[in-house]
Amino acid sequence: MNSRINQLRSYMNDNRIDAMLITSPKHVYYLTGFATDPHERFLGLLLPRGDEALMLVPALDYEAAQAASSVANIHTHGDTDNAYDVLRKLIPSGVKSLGVEKEHLSVQRFETMSGTIGADSYVDVGLPLREMRAIKSPEEATRMRHAVRLVEDALRAGVAKVKPGVTEIELVAELEYQMKKLGAQGPSFDTMVLAGAKSALPHGHPDRTTVREGELLLFDLGVFADGYASDITRTFAVGEITDEMKRIYGAVLDGNLRAIESIRPGVSFGSLDRAARESIAAAGYGPQFNHRLGHGLGMDIHEYPSIHGNNEDLLREGMVFTVEPGVYVPGVGGVRIEDDVLVTANGVEVLTAYPKELTVIG
Amino acid sequence: MNSRINQLRSYMNDNRIDAMLITSPKHVYYLTGFATDPHERFLGLLLPRGDEALMLVPALDYEAAQAASSVANIHTHGDTDNAYDVLRKLIPSGVKSLGVEKEHLSVQRFETMSGTIGADSYVDVGLPLREMRAIKSPEEATRMRHAVRLVEDALRAGVAKVKPGVTEIELVAELEYQMKKLGAQGPSFDTMVLAGAKSALPHGHPDRTTVREGELLLFDLGVFADGYASDITRTFAVGEITDEMKRIYGAVLDGNLRAIESIRPGVSFGSLDRAARESIAAAGYGPQFNHRLGHGLGMDIHEYPSIHGNNEDLLREGMVFTVEPGVYVPGVGGVRIEDDVLVTANGVEVLTAYPKELTVIG
Repeated sequence: MNSRINQLRSYMNDNRIDAMLITSPKHVYYLTGFATDPHERFLGLLLPRGDEALMLVPALDYEAAQAASSVANIHTHGDTDNAYDVLRKLIPSGVKSLGVEKEHLSVQRFETMSGTIGADSYVDVGLPLREMRAIKSPEEATRMRHAVRLVEDALRAGVAKVKPGVTEIELVAELEYQMKKLGAQGPSFDTMVLAGAKSALPHGHPDRTTVREGELLLFDLGVFADGYASDITRTFAVGEITDEMKRIYGAVLDGNLRAIESIRPGVSFGSLDRAARESIAAAGYGPQFNHRLGHGLGMDIHEYPSIHGNNEDLLREGMVFTVEPGVYVPGVGGVRIEDDVLVTANGVEVLTAYPKELTVIG
Repeated sequence: MNSRINQLRSYMNDNRIDAMLITSPKHVYYLTGFATDPHERFLGLLLPRGDEALMLVPALDYEAAQAASSVANIHTHGDTDNAYDVLRKLIPSGVKSLGVEKEHLSVQRFETMSGTIGADSYVDVGLPLREMRAIKSPEEATRMRHAVRLVEDALRAGVAKVKPGVTEIELVAELEYQMKKLGAQGPSFDTMVLAGAKSALPHGHPDRTTVREGELLLFDLGVFADGYASDITRTFAVGEITDEMKRIYGAVLDGNLRAIESIRPGVSFGSLDRAARESIAAAGYGPQFNHRLGHGLGMDIHEYPSIHGNNEDLLREGMVFTVEPGVYVPGVGGVRIEDDVLVTANGVEVLTAYPKELTVIG
């Protein structure tokens, strides 16, 4: 926690920001270890450049903050206080330029807050936070392995319930039941189960469509556990499927493996996307792979980086992201195979271990 | 839909706003019937004062918008366009004052957008939307009755699984499984099951605590269905409970009934809160009813109005809100009984029908 706050302090020094006010509950948690959902109440972590960090929390959160937060200097506001008045008095005099999270702060809250505290300028500090979050610490990696393990256990239990006639939403219900039972906080996004031709619809929604013999069945799911997300996609054959479906599967699996083989620090995100795309194009399905290769993963299900052909940023050790090529053939079906990967010093650790060979179920 | 847009048009006239730009997906849906989650892409409904309404949607949403939207004039932007450039060209010349949703708009998006479109002033139009949403149309009431029916069916199925030794999270998993299976979109908030002394913790979280004979068991849950939320709390006796627990239950039930009896157009929200509070205080548990009586309910689980003793706003026909008094005695347990109610022309329709007499389960 302290090293994260220290990184922000150097960013403030480099950019001549007098103080930083962190207001998104997720980032307060990331920087202090104190997790809360303050709803409409004000929550803020204040980092003055040359001064001790402090927190301003709703009064009813005081004990919880004291117990969990690495920042010891904790102030409170009650429901009859104006939280911004309290905040103004806590900001050291001489703070002219204040760093805030412009992506998280609503215009309404910003206008109320800035009207009261009256700094000269407000600069966005989303970038350093985004950069820090992109590199996972060993402890964060441990949490993500756990979130992956939970979702894979849930997937295994859901797959065991597949038989012709079961509906997509029955399988969704089973998967989410298993997530909770296994101890996950919940799904990290809307669980997707798409049967048959629906597996080819990128915007498909699970409904009462039934699983049928001879079709593809796509599962895309994830959980939050200890504040971190997992995200996995597997596609199965229900009974005997056509040769075309098998070819599609082979092309996607090959694309997934090619991209993962390319992962190591120093290569570009674009090169991973191209590796998958070239392999899939060679199998004749280039135009049917119509989305990016993947996205960063961590405390959010979609975070920096975006892994597409035009992203020439370089991979760094500690980054975690998804590799999820897909091919969608209208009227036939779609296949997507998605893994979560961690960039290591020399290559890659594939966090997801669920088998990827074409598997017949039901 | 058209009557809603017309209400906004009169608000613009009355407040000299030249155009309104609605950007929250929920309100675009509310005003046009087109539901989408554009993620980071721009979605906007533009209502120029004297001109035809138009929508600007991501290109991949064009067909869906055409099919669903009551606003026929639909423009698109692609992933390589600057959406705000496209938007600027669609705003009639002479628009000086633009209404925006300051509660939903992030500072980041607002700065980018206003830098491109360059109106003279931006005014918040949250108020008229909030006011419109507080009064439910007959069609909205129908959807809310459906969301209530689904959560009650899920609750019934969950209650059937209660026996000594089952854990809180197993019951949560069962309830959420049933919600999905019954066809709900999902829970409208984190499902709460709190056993024994934990039922007295307003901030308790379900965990591996087991249900035991002689204790109270509190369920608080809701679903989203067709875009609308339900929210119900029931508290049960697991086997034989103490006389004190029965007294607490009786006090809360009485408070719930007194508040509901008072509901009709023209009375104040504060008077409902006081009716419940006086009744509970008469039973000796005044200080243990330590939260507001309820909250508005609709497309959001918490919306206007807030039902507390200081809210002297008046009830109007068509409003939907919760009535949820509770009494929490540390070390003994808590009871909360929550109904969803619709204000009718002459009184009230209680949407929730799940029995409220003290029931022994397990």
